[in-house]
Amino acid sequence: MRSDDAAASITDLIDLEKVEENLYRGTCHPGAPLRAFGGQVAAQALVAAGTTVASDRLVHSLHGYFIRAGRTDRPIVYGVDRTRDGRSFTTRRVVAIQDGVAIFSLSASFHRPEESPEHQAAMPAADGPEGLPDGWDAEVGTEGPAVFGTVLETRCATGLHTGLPDVGQGPRQELWVRARGTLADPPLLHACVLTYISDIRLALTATLPHLDGPEFPPLVSLDHALWFHRPFRADEWLLFAMDGPSYASSRGLSRGQFFTRDGRLVASVVQEGLFRKPVSR
Amino acid sequence: MRSDDAAASITDLIDLEKVEENLYRGTCHPGAPLRAFGGQVAAQALVAAGTTVASDRLVHSLHGYFIRAGRTDRPIVYGVDRTRDGRSFTTRRVVAIQDGVAIFSLSASFHRPEESPEHQAAMPAADGPEGLPDGWDAEVGTEGPAVFGTVLETRCATGLHTGLPDVGQGPRQELWVRARGTLADPPLLHACVLTYISDIRLALTATLPHLDGPEFPPLVSLDHALWFHRPFRADEWLLFAMDGPSYASSRGLSRGQFFTRDGRLVASVVQEGLFRKPVSR
Repeated sequence: MRSDDAAASITDLIDLEKVEENLYRGTCHPGAPLRAFGGQVAAQALVAAGTTVASDRLVHSLHGYFIRAGRTDRPIVYGVDRTRDGRSFTTRRVVAIQDGVAIFSLSASFHRPEESPEHQAAMPAADGPEGLPDGWDAEVGTEGPAVFGTVLETRCATGLHTGLPDVGQGPRQELWVRARGTLADPPLLHACVLTYISDIRLALTATLPHLDGPEFPPLVSLDHALWFHRPFRADEWLLFAMDGPSYASSRGLSRGQFFTRDGRLVASVVQEGLFRKPVSR
Repeated sequence: MRSDDAAASITDLIDLEKVEENLYRGTCHPGAPLRAFGGQVAAQALVAAGTTVASDRLVHSLHGYFIRAGRTDRPIVYGVDRTRDGRSFTTRRVVAIQDGVAIFSLSASFHRPEESPEHQAAMPAADGPEGLPDGWDAEVGTEGPAVFGTVLETRCATGLHTGLPDVGQGPRQELWVRARGTLADPPLLHACVLTYISDIRLALTATLPHLDGPEFPPLVSLDHALWFHRPFRADEWLLFAMDGPSYASSRGLSRGQFFTRDGRLVASVVQEGLFRKPVSR
């Protein structure tokens, strides 16, 4: 099923058609007005990369740049460069092409899991998800297309904290999120779904101190970096805890961490977003 | 001057020879045993990228992958792809080649500065740099080659905090650092020097809870992401505040923030490092 139909599940939104070895094609649902949603493009690019990697190697990081706005009225072609197949790491690069030019580039690295000691940052205190109202509209208007609500379940774990720069507390927000339905087991699928999820709401965080009203601000994602630390399922509740340590020159840096309900840190994400605040003078 | 001679300043270490349009060549000093130091490779790659960009556009982010170990006994060639020259953003990709294969890839984005409101995270409390002993050897052995001390001045602002996972405080360290001497003014030079600096000591952070002795651990940098938020000079003191929120499957995630002496957040960095702890069983 193509993603311009009503999507039955998030799996449909990241499904790709294989054109040739190392070449895939996908279609995106509308994101911000007329533009493809960056999380979907990044997730599809990771599908393309991951399909070329042995399944015992799990993606542990990806770095992407949004180069041009993607259109939703025609397909996107993903070309995979098999950069390296090493002893314990595999590296892939994907360029997403539309109308003959690159709209997105992704590099990703895959690693056969190893035994080692562990530590992690603690999960911030957050209510829920039970007992919290469905939806993510806390204090700013709805973001994005209706398909988000069709394929994802979200609960605001906290309100939006716009930040108190005087005392050094930056803006932050915490959201519970999971894919609706039950996903198949391959870890690559869960990583791709989390890639999709990790572009939702994140860039908003750094703009929170600068919003004048309840409208969702016009935001452009500039880049996207995601690290996968531990196994997880994207169809089980994850706490998406975000902060926004910097905003200057119209660019905001936002960071996120994903925790399972029992407090395991499973992924970290960083994104810079462009938000041009209308200057009233 | 080539970098295998005694370096007069850090500028010499990132100097490149132009081979042809979009093609540059550099040489690296020894880093970890026999391997090129990743910060130098990343800095040289940023020199190559930035040289192809109009000087009114400043680098605001870079993302790199260390694909193979670089050798220090022969040059590295940097090929620049001029991905996009847009209205307000410019995108470049650089592949660093040695012995015919890619050892490092970098994507970087450049942006003409814009006026906007601002906010930032507060600088953590830290002593110094005055009154602190010169050098960075707090509780682990010396890292890297002598050239670090020749071109950089460092002061440990705090001890190494190995972290108390039980109460949710992760490992962290704070270091004052600046390039020795006086650098020329172009912002690109300062960004490239900070790129070099930002790979020093960072990946250690996430390993701190797992070290058994005072030896600097065998660390491999896997990737490197750096965001430049505000103007700065790399020959003035910067506080490099680092934490390490995750370590699992032999991979540690470390994050850093650079602050000027008056508390301005000028850059953020994230890096994943590979540290295989010898298992004694």
